[in-house]
Amino acid sequence: MSGELISYADLVALLRAVFGHNGCSEAVAAVLAENCAMGERDGSLSHGIFRVDGYLSSLASGWVDGHAEPVVEDASPAFCRADARNGFAQPALAAARPLLVEKARHNGVAVLAIRNSHHFGALWPDIEPFAREGLIALSVVNSFACSVPYGAQSPVFGTNPIAFAAPRTGADPIVFDMATSSMANGDVQIAAREGRQLPPGSGVDSQGRPTTDPNAVLNGGALVPFGGHKGSALSMMIELLGAALTGGKFSFEVDWSEHKGAQTPHTGQLLIVFDPAFGGGLPFADRANDLVARMREAGLTRLPAERRYRHRREAETTGIPIAPTALARLRALAG
Amino acid sequence: MSGELISYADLVALLRAVFGHNGCSEAVAAVLAENCAMGERDGSLSHGIFRVDGYLSSLASGWVDGHAEPVVEDASPAFCRADARNGFAQPALAAARPLLVEKARHNGVAVLAIRNSHHFGALWPDIEPFAREGLIALSVVNSFACSVPYGAQSPVFGTNPIAFAAPRTGADPIVFDMATSSMANGDVQIAAREGRQLPPGSGVDSQGRPTTDPNAVLNGGALVPFGGHKGSALSMMIELLGAALTGGKFSFEVDWSEHKGAQTPHTGQLLIVFDPAFGGGLPFADRANDLVARMREAGLTRLPAERRYRHRREAETTGIPIAPTALARLRALAG
Repeated sequence: MSGELISYADLVALLRAVFGHNGCSEAVAAVLAENCAMGERDGSLSHGIFRVDGYLSSLASGWVDGHAEPVVEDASPAFCRADARNGFAQPALAAARPLLVEKARHNGVAVLAIRNSHHFGALWPDIEPFAREGLIALSVVNSFACSVPYGAQSPVFGTNPIAFAAPRTGADPIVFDMATSSMANGDVQIAAREGRQLPPGSGVDSQGRPTTDPNAVLNGGALVPFGGHKGSALSMMIELLGAALTGGKFSFEVDWSEHKGAQTPHTGQLLIVFDPAFGGGLPFADRANDLVARMREAGLTRLPAERRYRHRREAETTGIPIAPTALARLRALAG
Repeated sequence: MSGELISYADLVALLRAVFGHNGCSEAVAAVLAENCAMGERDGSLSHGIFRVDGYLSSLASGWVDGHAEPVVEDASPAFCRADARNGFAQPALAAARPLLVEKARHNGVAVLAIRNSHHFGALWPDIEPFAREGLIALSVVNSFACSVPYGAQSPVFGTNPIAFAAPRTGADPIVFDMATSSMANGDVQIAAREGRQLPPGSGVDSQGRPTTDPNAVLNGGALVPFGGHKGSALSMMIELLGAALTGGKFSFEVDWSEHKGAQTPHTGQLLIVFDPAFGGGLPFADRANDLVARMREAGLTRLPAERRYRHRREAETTGIPIAPTALARLRALAG
């Protein structure tokens, strides 16, 4: 990819200024800037600087509070909650994280239930750090109604991602982050922008007919869950864990009709963190290596996060390539 | 379906005698009999009396210990383990269940990690009872290498089911139980027995070529994960949670070559139980009803467990229909 090269630190600083000049407190700007820069650094382009316009549009609409101060609630030795107070989910996670880790280390498992929160980023940045500390983390978040349950005719579920991170000995963690819809919304938007068709089976148009046209999906159409009735069941589970358990809104309850330009779903997020030291076997991170070794023997050439790690290494060496027009725009937005 | 009609209680008693006369202690026979009878009662035929031959064959081979007494380990206020001691997983769950429920009620979340265990039944009977007590339950279990990871050439993962149960107000719980392979092994066996082809994309033959022939899958071939790379990632997660975290064996480590007739995978199982009273919102079971109502409005005609519940009601009214030859065989096996 051609483009100007910028270091991760400089991109974070630039994005911090962008968010800080467009409706976010310093604390929120810092968290969103890191999240967004990590996506760009790792080649996860649908969750990198591509997202800035959506964030700013949502902030300008008054739909999300960029100055919200999350409130952490200590519910039990293994359960904590965070009320994001109509702010973003990531600052709520940042606020609750020390307590969550302490609970997981003391009990072997701990839960963080975030509600009243907007999640507009990738999920892997939320969970990879736990695995780098030797913990296992699982997170789900629901979004806005854009996916038609298997056997139904209109959208109910969000893209509803599930992400998982597990430590390995002497290697980058095993991490995956996947929409339980056929695709992530960001990828549909990028396909539309680039004039590409979607893979067959990705979505339906406004009449409920299968389509591969990203514009038809975005304009009155919808996605479908991945993997038929099974992906649909998982998406339903994510509504129940991400919204009903946390106290957030279901995807179908997100009503931003009074906030023109709103794009950030106002729902909930659940995190489950395990300390594998409480498990009943050999050291988990060694066992994870055993599994990876066997998968390689079976011919697997790429683990889920390896493309991101490769991009990350390149970015650390040479910088992050960004199109000059995109960079100029960010600089203008930074004031 | 034609056949002799037998009450659930009578079928449980009959199966108890079958297991008791074929290598199981009274305690183990009681648990397996209920599990097996529940499958038959609910029309979940691949996990009903169809499984008896596999159980008995495994018991006769010396691969699994039908007299094992599980040992429960209290690891923390929210984490318990069970060593099934080379016995079945369900008696280990039964032994640990009171402790697990108490932990979940006190902490909002609790984990049970079962290792050194054989799971040969459906998963939903393990978790539905939690939802009937107002709790949310999630369980995963790995099995034996019979599914080829996405992007690999030979089997590494098991059918690796994930099951989830959540309470509703005034209605049967929401329950699903699904293999993360394209199909469950029992369903492949039933298709082979009945001379049916598998749906396209279910598996590969011994040369790694796609096939719809169940015999080709069973004889040197393999299944594939459902939903491509996403189902494959979930299957990998289930190896890590079901085996690496619990201390059980990975599916690819199951080596029953010295035990002719062995069929029960000797691995591990993880259960996570939440008490939704610790969540941050309105009563969970009411919220679950809101979601179901919206799914129905969207045109959904059947929730995942509804077919089972319908069979169950019929069985409660008229009895469970079983082919006379099958019933005669069970009576012979019961001694």
